[in-house]
Amino acid sequence: MNIDMIRAADARLQGHKRVTPLLSSPFLDEIAGRRVLIKAECLQHTGSFKFRGAFSAISALSAAQRAKGILAFSSGNHAQGVALAAKLHGVPSVIIMPKDAPAIKINNTRALGGEVILYDRDTEDRDALGEAMERDRGLTLVRPFDDPQVIAGQGTAGLEIAVQAADMGISDAQVLVCCGGGGLTSGIATALAADAPKMRVCPVEPAGFDDTARSLVAGTHQTNAQTSGSICDAIVTPSPGKLTFPILKDLCARGYAVTDEQALKAIKLAFQRLKIVLEPGGAVALAAALFHGDALSHDTVIAVASGGNIDDDMFRRALEVKL
Amino acid sequence: MNIDMIRAADARLQGHKRVTPLLSSPFLDEIAGRRVLIKAECLQHTGSFKFRGAFSAISALSAAQRAKGILAFSSGNHAQGVALAAKLHGVPSVIIMPKDAPAIKINNTRALGGEVILYDRDTEDRDALGEAMERDRGLTLVRPFDDPQVIAGQGTAGLEIAVQAADMGISDAQVLVCCGGGGLTSGIATALAADAPKMRVCPVEPAGFDDTARSLVAGTHQTNAQTSGSICDAIVTPSPGKLTFPILKDLCARGYAVTDEQALKAIKLAFQRLKIVLEPGGAVALAAALFHGDALSHDTVIAVASGGNIDDDMFRRALEVKL
Repeated sequence: MNIDMIRAADARLQGHKRVTPLLSSPFLDEIAGRRVLIKAECLQHTGSFKFRGAFSAISALSAAQRAKGILAFSSGNHAQGVALAAKLHGVPSVIIMPKDAPAIKINNTRALGGEVILYDRDTEDRDALGEAMERDRGLTLVRPFDDPQVIAGQGTAGLEIAVQAADMGISDAQVLVCCGGGGLTSGIATALAADAPKMRVCPVEPAGFDDTARSLVAGTHQTNAQTSGSICDAIVTPSPGKLTFPILKDLCARGYAVTDEQALKAIKLAFQRLKIVLEPGGAVALAAALFHGDALSHDTVIAVASGGNIDDDMFRRALEVKL
Repeated sequence: MNIDMIRAADARLQGHKRVTPLLSSPFLDEIAGRRVLIKAECLQHTGSFKFRGAFSAISALSAAQRAKGILAFSSGNHAQGVALAAKLHGVPSVIIMPKDAPAIKINNTRALGGEVILYDRDTEDRDALGEAMERDRGLTLVRPFDDPQVIAGQGTAGLEIAVQAADMGISDAQVLVCCGGGGLTSGIATALAADAPKMRVCPVEPAGFDDTARSLVAGTHQTNAQTSGSICDAIVTPSPGKLTFPILKDLCARGYAVTDEQALKAIKLAFQRLKIVLEPGGAVALAAALFHGDALSHDTVIAVASGGNIDDDMFRRALEVKL
């Protein structure tokens, strides 16, 4: 994965991706004690940045291979991104989801054109199911982050940040990115290393699930003690990716971790001050910008708000939190 | 007011206004039975389009006049737009607000740099208070809609719609605009008459407060029977403006009215499908696009979502509404 692949992905995405705005509020600047800009990827198609990587990967396939169809494993944002990107290419997609995934996510994925196959987490082998699909139907698997074309697609958000920040006269900033497997963070870091080399990219994770931050300290892949228990479900992953971690190690100095309560506060403040809807996993970078000021390195911080697929109950919970 | 004034306002606003995105969702298209694009002015500075008109009017003053300061009457979005626009010009602003205005709006206006003067609706004469301010301190009044430079500023949203729609290959559409005094509607209609002449602009109002729709039918200024009682407080006005109505009469065929419940449903759908926050008065155009399909004239509808300054309780109420 390199900058040329990101530029090529960007060319393929022209007219399909949404160029999401860089938002701000004097009220948030005051809380953070510095200038804060928010890259609102919640406004991307399907409500998260995942559409970029999915479209990039699908558009990079040969027409013949693509026509056989796309396969993905996901119960969340990646599922919706792949389903819509496949639909826009006029090819079928099969999304393998756990039987106990929320009905709304299953319905959304179907409504976007995905063929949803449900499996039982306890009794069925997800990977075996997927391999059979690849073999029998000739489907191509699009991974959520450990795929060069997926990383390249996420990196197109970084190209936009470089242009939008330059338009505002900003070349020097700390860029905080919500980080699960590291696809978005490594893509943006690669793009900015080329187009805005004075910017410093740092991953942000939920406290207790900061495998990437600890891996950066250790220099080797670290894993989380637990695999569930955060409200930031979209970015809870066991360990950084095989392809993403070497990029992060090369380009990111350190990571940050925020609590669930800080993520909820960031959701409420984004509602009040930016008029955007964030999900917990999409709010951790903004939370770090607002509440970790002492540990930040730059006077200007760009926080990537990576997604907004939150259900009504969780949003109500965020509105109830005390600021 | 004419297209040249809008283009001049747009030049003055460069680098200051936010170019708000044109959003969409296949789920909303399905509900509406047509293509729906949403111009997300809730993402404008201060959370509503009002910043455009305020900045336009203040930037059009001579430097000497501007330096003496700006005056506005408002308990809502106009207050915040004027306060921030004055601050960006480095000049003082005085905002006259009713004593019983919500504390959050008073605090926000102050935090944006406005000097807030509170008056008692029952015992004090607002206009006399303002005239004394103009006379004694040399302040310049910026009206909420009946001012050519304010209308020209709001019209810059129309210039953006023309460019953004053309980029998507759209030249022919019905454009629905949330309408109070008619500043935004008349500005957008003038801009589109020049830059996208096949588009048809129509005002949307709350049911029971459809003075503009009835005025368009009658051909003369009509008034509303009541002055309060809608949750769409931002766009409840007694009658169309003196300057705005002749423009609306010339360029708008008809108006639409939506119920409070339809506005709440539009808020909930914008939350779920677009990841933006709307206030009731800022959601009526989207509500008409979604729920008045039978009365719409075009296969593509552009709904201007004019503002997002909603308090937590009202937003909770919208989340509770049945879709």
